[in-house]
Amino acid sequence: MSKIVTFGELMLRLSIEKERLETANKFDVCYGGGEANVAVCLKHFNHETFFVSKLPNNSLGNGALAALKREGVNCKYIQIGGERLGVYYLEVGSSLRGSKVVYDRANSAFSNSSLDDYPFEEILKGADIFHFTGITTALSENCALLVEKACKIARKMGVLVSCDLNYRSKLWTKEQAQKVMIPLMQYVDICIGNEEDFESCLGYKPEADIIKGKTDTAGYKHIFEKALKDFGFKMVASSLRESFSASHNGWKGLLFDGKQFYESKHYDIQPIVDRVGSGDSFASGIIHGFLCFNDMQKTIDFAVAASALKHTIFGDFNQVTEEEVFKLMNGDGSGRVVR
Amino acid sequence: MSKIVTFGELMLRLSIEKERLETANKFDVCYGGGEANVAVCLKHFNHETFFVSKLPNNSLGNGALAALKREGVNCKYIQIGGERLGVYYLEVGSSLRGSKVVYDRANSAFSNSSLDDYPFEEILKGADIFHFTGITTALSENCALLVEKACKIARKMGVLVSCDLNYRSKLWTKEQAQKVMIPLMQYVDICIGNEEDFESCLGYKPEADIIKGKTDTAGYKHIFEKALKDFGFKMVASSLRESFSASHNGWKGLLFDGKQFYESKHYDIQPIVDRVGSGDSFASGIIHGFLCFNDMQKTIDFAVAASALKHTIFGDFNQVTEEEVFKLMNGDGSGRVVR
Amino acid sequence: MSKIVTFGELMLRLSIEKERLETANKFDVCYGGGEANVAVCLKHFNHETFFVSKLPNNSLGNGALAALKREGVNCKYIQIGGERLGVYYLEVGSSLRGSKVVYDRANSAFSNSSLDDYPFEEILKGADIFHFTGITTALSENCALLVEKACKIARKMGVLVSCDLNYRSKLWTKEQAQKVMIPLMQYVDICIGNEEDFESCLGYKPEADIIKGKTDTAGYKHIFEKALKDFGFKMVASSLRESFSASHNGWKGLLFDGKQFYESKHYDIQPIVDRVGSGDSFASGIIHGFLCFNDMQKTIDFAVAASALKHTIFGDFNQVTEEEVFKLMNGDGSGRVVR
Amino acid sequence: MSKIVTFGELMLRLSIEKERLETANKFDVCYGGGEANVAVCLKHFNHETFFVSKLPNNSLGNGALAALKREGVNCKYIQIGGERLGVYYLEVGSSLRGSKVVYDRANSAFSNSSLDDYPFEEILKGADIFHFTGITTALSENCALLVEKACKIARKMGVLVSCDLNYRSKLWTKEQAQKVMIPLMQYVDICIGNEEDFESCLGYKPEADIIKGKTDTAGYKHIFEKALKDFGFKMVASSLRESFSASHNGWKGLLFDGKQFYESKHYDIQPIVDRVGSGDSFASGIIHGFLCFNDMQKTIDFAVAASALKHTIFGDFNQVTEEEVFKLMNGDGSGRVVR
Amino acid sequence: MSKIVTFGELMLRLSIEKERLETANKFDVCYGGGEANVAVCLKHFNHETFFVSKLPNNSLGNGALAALKREGVNCKYIQIGGERLGVYYLEVGSSLRGSKVVYDRANSAFSNSSLDDYPFEEILKGADIFHFTGITTALSENCALLVEKACKIARKMGVLVSCDLNYRSKLWTKEQAQKVMIPLMQYVDICIGNEEDFESCLGYKPEADIIKGKTDTAGYKHIFEKALKDFGFKMVASSLRESFSASHNGWKGLLFDGKQFYESKHYDIQPIVDRVGSGDSFASGIIHGFLCFNDMQKTIDFAVAASALKHTIFGDFNQVTEEEVFKLMNGDGSGRVVR
Amino acid sequence: MSKIVTFGELMLRLSIEKERLETANKFDVCYGGGEANVAVCLKHFNHETFFVSKLPNNSLGNGALAALKREGVNCKYIQIGGERLGVYYLEVGSSLRGSKVVYDRANSAFSNSSLDDYPFEEILKGADIFHFTGITTALSENCALLVEKACKIARKMGVLVSCDLNYRSKLWTKEQAQKVMIPLMQYVDICIGNEEDFESCLGYKPEADIIKGKTDTAGYKHIFEKALKDFGFKMVASSLRESFSASHNGWKGLLFDGKQFYESKHYDIQPIVDRVGSGDSFASGIIHGFLCFNDMQKTIDFAVAASALKHTIFGDFNQVTEEEVFKLMNGDGSGRVVR
Repeated sequence: MSKIVTFGELMLRLSIEKERLETANKFDVCYGGGEANVAVCLKHFNHETFFVSKLPNNSLGNGALAALKREGVNCKYIQIGGERLGVYYLEVGSSLRGSKVVYDRANSAFSNSSLDDYPFEEILKGADIFHFTGITTALSENCALLVEKACKIARKMGVLVSCDLNYRSKLWTKEQAQKVMIPLMQYVDICIGNEEDFESCLGYKPEADIIKGKTDTAGYKHIFEKALKDFGFKMVASSLRESFSASHNGWKGLLFDGKQFYESKHYDIQPIVDRVGSGDSFASGIIHGFLCFNDMQKTIDFAVAASALKHTIFGDFNQVTEEEVFKLMNGDGSGRVVR
Repeated sequence: MSKIVTFGELMLRLSIEKERLETANKFDVCYGGGEANVAVCLKHFNHETFFVSKLPNNSLGNGALAALKREGVNCKYIQIGGERLGVYYLEVGSSLRGSKVVYDRANSAFSNSSLDDYPFEEILKGADIFHFTGITTALSENCALLVEKACKIARKMGVLVSCDLNYRSKLWTKEQAQKVMIPLMQYVDICIGNEEDFESCLGYKPEADIIKGKTDTAGYKHIFEKALKDFGFKMVASSLRESFSASHNGWKGLLFDGKQFYESKHYDIQPIVDRVGSGDSFASGIIHGFLCFNDMQKTIDFAVAASALKHTIFGDFNQVTEEEVFKLMNGDGSGRVVR
Repeated sequence: MSKIVTFGELMLRLSIEKERLETANKFDVCYGGGEANVAVCLKHFNHETFFVSKLPNNSLGNGALAALKREGVNCKYIQIGGERLGVYYLEVGSSLRGSKVVYDRANSAFSNSSLDDYPFEEILKGADIFHFTGITTALSENCALLVEKACKIARKMGVLVSCDLNYRSKLWTKEQAQKVMIPLMQYVDICIGNEEDFESCLGYKPEADIIKGKTDTAGYKHIFEKALKDFGFKMVASSLRESFSASHNGWKGLLFDGKQFYESKHYDIQPIVDRVGSGDSFASGIIHGFLCFNDMQKTIDFAVAASALKHTIFGDFNQVTEEEVFKLMNGDGSGRVVR
Repeated sequence: MSKIVTFGELMLRLSIEKERLETANKFDVCYGGGEANVAVCLKHFNHETFFVSKLPNNSLGNGALAALKREGVNCKYIQIGGERLGVYYLEVGSSLRGSKVVYDRANSAFSNSSLDDYPFEEILKGADIFHFTGITTALSENCALLVEKACKIARKMGVLVSCDLNYRSKLWTKEQAQKVMIPLMQYVDICIGNEEDFESCLGYKPEADIIKGKTDTAGYKHIFEKALKDFGFKMVASSLRESFSASHNGWKGLLFDGKQFYESKHYDIQPIVDRVGSGDSFASGIIHGFLCFNDMQKTIDFAVAASALKHTIFGDFNQVTEEEVFKLMNGDGSGRVVR
Repeated sequence: MSKIVTFGELMLRLSIEKERLETANKFDVCYGGGEANVAVCLKHFNHETFFVSKLPNNSLGNGALAALKREGVNCKYIQIGGERLGVYYLEVGSSLRGSKVVYDRANSAFSNSSLDDYPFEEILKGADIFHFTGITTALSENCALLVEKACKIARKMGVLVSCDLNYRSKLWTKEQAQKVMIPLMQYVDICIGNEEDFESCLGYKPEADIIKGKTDTAGYKHIFEKALKDFGFKMVASSLRESFSASHNGWKGLLFDGKQFYESKHYDIQPIVDRVGSGDSFASGIIHGFLCFNDMQKTIDFAVAASALKHTIFGDFNQVTEEEVFKLMNGDGSGRVVR
Repeated sequence: MSKIVTFGELMLRLSIEKERLETANKFDVCYGGGEANVAVCLKHFNHETFFVSKLPNNSLGNGALAALKREGVNCKYIQIGGERLGVYYLEVGSSLRGSKVVYDRANSAFSNSSLDDYPFEEILKGADIFHFTGITTALSENCALLVEKACKIARKMGVLVSCDLNYRSKLWTKEQAQKVMIPLMQYVDICIGNEEDFESCLGYKPEADIIKGKTDTAGYKHIFEKALKDFGFKMVASSLRESFSASHNGWKGLLFDGKQFYESKHYDIQPIVDRVGSGDSFASGIIHGFLCFNDMQKTIDFAVAASALKHTIFGDFNQVTEEEVFKLMNGDGSGRVVR
């Protein structure tokens, strides 16, 4: 069991299936956010996980906190304050109709964090991993500065840093992203991102054609090698999604440790119950493998299987055990009833 | 059929019953706001009603618009633009546990309206009534200035002005309210408000003890007489709520036309399905009576019966017909099955 | 355990709570109808009950049949055929807003029954009671003739006849009702009806003021005595409802056996979950008491307690046991948790 | 923005998923009907659309009206009257179990329309398109006569006529259909129908084998050429469905403008959320393309993409924008999350 | 119409979709169990079916009874008594996540049956088929003895015996199973089981690799021939499932009558709504074909089509008619809307 | 903030409203149990609470654990093991129909606890209160012995012991109860129970007539004085419920500290959303007051107000804050909307 710290925003998620957001008369309620999702997923893999964030002192902030506690995440470093909880509305797509997200996260408690809100020296004491994503750095100047601060402390304290680039075009431009993200890369040990992320955040050019649902594994090698050389990552990994439709995806992963390229098994996921949070599960799997397996092939296989399972569960959180992931890795995706 | 124009904010409402907001896994979705509620209610009384507002160009703005259209409200003067739709979360109370509202309405499209967003000369052409509430004026300086502008044009064009004082302590202080509201009173013909509103918005002192659920009709007479004299209102009206519990209220109304005091029949409402919007139904009933009845007693009786019925229907909107209100006024609150 | 035969229409019921029918996006589905409700209720009191009717050969007819079978009613004499199943839409009222029924039952399979659809000689063999209501006789000329036919056969075979007058103003006028119902009364042994029924179906004048929620027990005595004398009933009974609101009723009953008047205990029912079918439960209780108790006071007390309990259960059907009714009769309406 | 008038019946739809109609305890409620669906779909493509029909003066008629208003359809020519609203029950199929419809539409307000219920001269003034379907003409003799009347007036006023043949075997026989439909074809400018429709309504013989899910594009050419020659259509179009299962369809379209055959892109739709109304979306897309694109290939591609998207949304109504259809046409059916 | 008797346990089933059991806030409720499912399915094929079991005298026992009655199963031989109703919790899988069952059935009323609880001489009088499964024999020693007793009486009375081997590894070991099941085989006329069942219950070795979703038809022939020779079965049949995922299965069947091997059509089922009970539907189809068709190919085709349809319906019970099965057998799995 | 330890069983609760358990097609899911409820309630009053129990290693055990964690209860001393989670089914009553509980808790993991499952020396280190109820002691001999063990250790370590007598007639007889409970009383400092509990567990005779909904405050004084004298309690308290109906209760409390009798304010609760767990809230309030207020009147007022609020919230858990309880104590039970 390792100690893992993640830092970012937790939002209220309001979703609707089979209908448009415009005509919804009920919303399903859950809470989610990239870094919180990683804390939850790694908790289910039996690590001690700390989520660091800021939540408003109202019913929704309390609801977000309770949601994390239910999953067993340690919340003692979550600050209470600020104006509001960020919200996102999710119209869950189906077949040819893609999912749609309407963000209402401006001015959230977390994005307005002060520079001294989080005692990172104390928080990171004894930690094995500090994890952040490019969403946090995109939220506000302070958030980016806080990530930089945490990274520096982590480096100083010997805590490894994991970063999921996670480019969000609704939050910032490529230029803004690169200006913030590139200087942070010097602190990163494990770098995770898909083709688009490498291009937008670091200025690299993968050749995968996302829309058509094809992925070019070969194209990644060049990028991964360059990234490792440029920034000294210990490991680079990417999930590769083939988007056949909103209900049907192909899913695999690639990992490069500076010596060898590892490509995972490929999964065909149909139907997709909820793909939100699958990238976070992939990152969680990479971190888990890095900490526990000492086997790169097993690591990428685990990360891909764990995140493939996430697609079958409602909500942002991936509530699967290591045992369930192993079962799928070992070839049982047959979906037979266990009885 | 008269033409009535109302001006204000429409919000997304997310509510939960029997549970706390913190533990909700579903929210019921509807849309509401004081002035929109009045436009809807008066439409059901067969008037042509125009709601004037600003909604963001996203799924939630579209959902709000569709909700109004379904009720038959004319939306041609609603502007599309701005950042976000205001939201409020409603924990529906029961018995000893009061309902709880969490507002998340800062920076809404409407509250950020520009001073030239609404062509009031065109909008008010041929109108019989222009209606606003103290919520609109509390939202922003621009909103208050827009109300003033509309009032001046209405006065110039011979359109009567109706105002529901509707003090909201979460939006502004009494001092702020009085600074804005008192100067607007010169344009108002029909003034509606409960005891607290008169005190907070206009500086008057009613003696009703709200918490204990008692109301002192006598105390109102003095205030009403003073208000009519101070501001030249044609009519002043107030609903009087006895709050026995979140599920059980007494309900009646008072009206003063400068000559005589009229007190309505008293209703005992138990259980309450949804009391949000009942004040707006009361205002709608007053306006309807003013326009159609030429009978002050009938007007206050209608307003009280219409708003009593609102308590029995989910949502902000009061979807009852004039015929249904008459049925209740005529003594049939027995709830017998019509078959 | 007695054999009881009831004859009438079973309808699909589509209902909505807290909202208007106009805005419903879900309907709760159940099946119900006066005579079927009696068959179900008496089955729960452990009698062998046969419901005789006609249902269309489609999914809804099958659904109606399955609903009866679930309750244990013997359906072997239900004919399959005709065009459609009657439907009624129920807006469940609350407090001051009464429930509203929209009938869509014209041209139903049952109302279009042929005169030779039901082999009443066979059906009534060994029966103790044949029960019908004034709803059946109002549906069509054939239905009225079929009731007459069944009554004659019952009389011939020594089967006692029970009739719930059940006047429905949406189905026929008082004149039509009296023309059909008065001649049928010669066959009736147990006659059940409230004040309105006696007036509309038989031309009697009760003095109870239904709307105001007052009931005048005294006024009934005269009517009951006259009815017994006019038609030779063995027993006349009426439930008396005080309609304080759609959610709150008073409930008691009166019975006259030609010798003595019996008045039941009075129940205060608040809130009402579903009052549809309560009259049918009252009739069932009267029949059950008549067959099993040989005690008039116990009979009227049982009928009133059984039907009071019906108000607390969703749907037309009263799924309470004799034991549960006795518990309430014996004074335990305290609603304490049994654990 | 064009003015489009559609004429037909709007029904209440009650549906259930995953279960049989017989065991449903809830129905999902919506409203739909071929011509209303076209009015709604074209409204979402920004046209001014008028739906002409007759609805009963009860809660369900009002509900139907409100549903249309919510979508922005102009309802000023809808007549209020008649006995009842038609209803259809929909058991939504899955995989090998096809969807099942139980109609209960006999004697509906619309089917009993009088010959002078609709002032077509006034209604069609300034219209660009008058649209009807073979469902309307099948409902009653009067309905067929009213369509004929409207067609004649349209022709006289220079309004183009669009007809979706839409053969329904539960409403009439082929012989009845041909007797009514063939004479009407002289007024039709745009004729839409699938293989079965051409055979049943006009007596043509397509060779597609519907059950086996194969479609023979070649077979259509002959029919389309003949139809254009026989009746002088400006355009003939058909959607082609490959029914692999209730949850998985192939979907494309064909269009002939007298000069050239255009075949659309093919879509694979899996899973299908709700295929009811997809044909109406196809017709809407054809009309929209005809009015706006002046490009036959773009027209058939648009119609097919618009109707493919319909399959992914609950209800009869297709609430997609022109922009969303263009996105799919341009190749993005990948269902990626937009965020 | 034949008389069929089935003997076994009926359980309460509590299920959740799209979420894990751990986070469920609602459970869908139904009742099911192998032998009850057969009684229900064969009732829908118009046989008179008797389910023999023991249910506790509480609300859940009553609910189970009512569920069977709704389907038309004759329940007169169901004993009332014992401590509790067995329960199973079902997490419905999706795609790569298999369904998960948590049993809580120990100490159930049925498993604690006494040896003289069921008057099998009376029960089996006039019966055509007595059906049991290997689940019943695994529940307790008494249950196994009761099955033996029933089989002996059936044999004596000329009632044919059908057995679905149905091995459940959570209930017993292979050794235990074989010790009980092998001696019972002498009484069995129709033996049904998949590859795993033959191995676990009878010690045979099929070669199909279940996990990988491949099935080897050839491997079955040897086993079937041996089984017929060893035990004198009149017929052996097996369904063959290809488990591509929890949402997508291939499905076919094999039958051997001692003379010839019959292989059914193959079905591709996607998505799967509910696969629980599909094996019971297969057994029901075999029994139905055996009793009614006198055509082995038709029998295996019917059994496979009937059970394929079961996958599309919620719950343990297969509510499809013989007509619907024939429709699918005749090639219409296209899922087209019937309207 | 004090440290409080509670010891007992946590069950799965499956409930249904408005319908009978027999006809439920959905159950609402939550978890609850007397001692867990106290741990949850006191956590919401800001204490550090530890719940000590045993849960099975399956999805339901995990669900129970997650439910506690969500509320913030420290679960580190919960053992994982045993066969099954106890379950109770709750038919929520209404008006005259009382709630009904069906227990299925035999053989639960907790009731089968071993005598060395819980390291009470470690658990109770630094604790302020150890709380148990008479439900725990009724579950099994081991459970009773474990309570005795914990009490002895608590006494030795100076931890105060609180006991809620909580007699459950479905679990044991009065004789059994008294045999176990009386000897335990020597360790108890705070004793809580209603009239029935004192009679059944300790052999005392209160005179309150529960069924009729009357309570005799005077009768309690004698019992309380005797109890204090007999067992040396520091404090005795009881809630007094007037059961007008399942939906309407009166509620107050009594406390005796050896010197003076304190009677709380009386609350009228109507409607009741969920009364399960209200007694546990009362106990929690007593403990909270004892630890924090040093004011007996305030203590009993707080306990009664806290538990009155519980009646308005779904589930066993009382999720109200100290601030909300104070608000009600200070007279605001008016249920006014806070906005």
